[in-house]
Amino acid sequence: MDEGTQQTEPKRRGRRSGGEDTKAALLAAARETFVERGYEGATVRSIAARAGVDAAMVNHWFGGKEGLFAKAVLQVPIDPITLVERLLAGPPEEIGERIVRNFLGVWDATGGGHFAALMRSVTSHDRVAEVLREFFVHHLLRRVLAGVDVTDRPELRATLAASQIFGMGVVRYVVRFEPLTSADVDTVVKAVAPTIQRYLTGDID
Amino acid sequence: MDEGTQQTEPKRRGRRSGGEDTKAALLAAARETFVERGYEGATVRSIAARAGVDAAMVNHWFGGKEGLFAKAVLQVPIDPITLVERLLAGPPEEIGERIVRNFLGVWDATGGGHFAALMRSVTSHDRVAEVLREFFVHHLLRRVLAGVDVTDRPELRATLAASQIFGMGVVRYVVRFEPLTSADVDTVVKAVAPTIQRYLTGDID
Repeated sequence: MDEGTQQTEPKRRGRRSGGEDTKAALLAAARETFVERGYEGATVRSIAARAGVDAAMVNHWFGGKEGLFAKAVLQVPIDPITLVERLLAGPPEEIGERIVRNFLGVWDATGGGHFAALMRSVTSHDRVAEVLREFFVHHLLRRVLAGVDVTDRPELRATLAASQIFGMGVVRYVVRFEPLTSADVDTVVKAVAPTIQRYLTGDID
Repeated sequence: MDEGTQQTEPKRRGRRSGGEDTKAALLAAARETFVERGYEGATVRSIAARAGVDAAMVNHWFGGKEGLFAKAVLQVPIDPITLVERLLAGPPEEIGERIVRNFLGVWDATGGGHFAALMRSVTSHDRVAEVLREFFVHHLLRRVLAGVDVTDRPELRATLAASQIFGMGVVRYVVRFEPLTSADVDTVVKAVAPTIQRYLTGDID
């Protein structure tokens, strides 16, 4: 297997030449496959085959299917397992703050460009919305809720949190309402974190 | 002037025939003009001229420029002056609840179709985002804040409220995360109204 992949990737790993082309082909194949088959239906093997890449490289480059999905569809440069770990690393009563800081950190890094691209895909392709739903609620927020031992209506809480996370993204990066677009991270965290905290662990009735 | 408009509108006003075609032409002209010139730059006269309609009909049909904008761009069937009045009709400590109820009422009425269409325009045309910003923050939320005597950072509060209103729309109507998509209005109001209330009148630090 390794010999095969050596042909598509130069010995020195980096951001140049063949390696980047192969990664790009893999990301394109992943986007198509996830949209066609959904998150559960898409296999790493089928995506790799479509791109003409060894399946082992998906794990090597993206940390598996979840990481590939994050990069290809969500367009975030971090795999969800690592993100969930990071969100859970701290007191449960500060989960709202960690969520806002981490999402702002990831999206601000590209000036909101990746978030805006995600919203464009979501609004124009029903299937992307479906895949995003499956992934964002079940693979991300539900895990976070399990991690902080919330068992009261976790689905409703997860979708409420999603509404404020996406809404923050829409206003900061897409419609760009000032002063929220230029506000520093601490200002946004102070305002928005208590909302996420309440949706996930507080009183929602 | 009135004789002129009689030619484009049949004597019996209604939802049929020439009147509807003329209205549709006016809405199309309004969308184009608002996108080209912005909310402030677009005049009722220029929109009416583009559609070949008497400017007086804009007031007659849509209650003026704001109502025309609401119908053509925001795709809500209510003019903003009336909406602001409705939002302000009651105790200030329940403004969050009235906002959530009114937006859900308007958007649920088309199964979220109009909200989804608005998001599609916003994500694909920068100018629509700009026009929406100008309008939503300045002509709608700022007026609401003035109505409840909030003078502490009204712009930031307005944009925070907008983030939760749009986020609720995105999750309920665009990505359609369950159970938020099918949740009854009271469930959503109980969960989301305190967020809007805090953003507008509460502690955001």
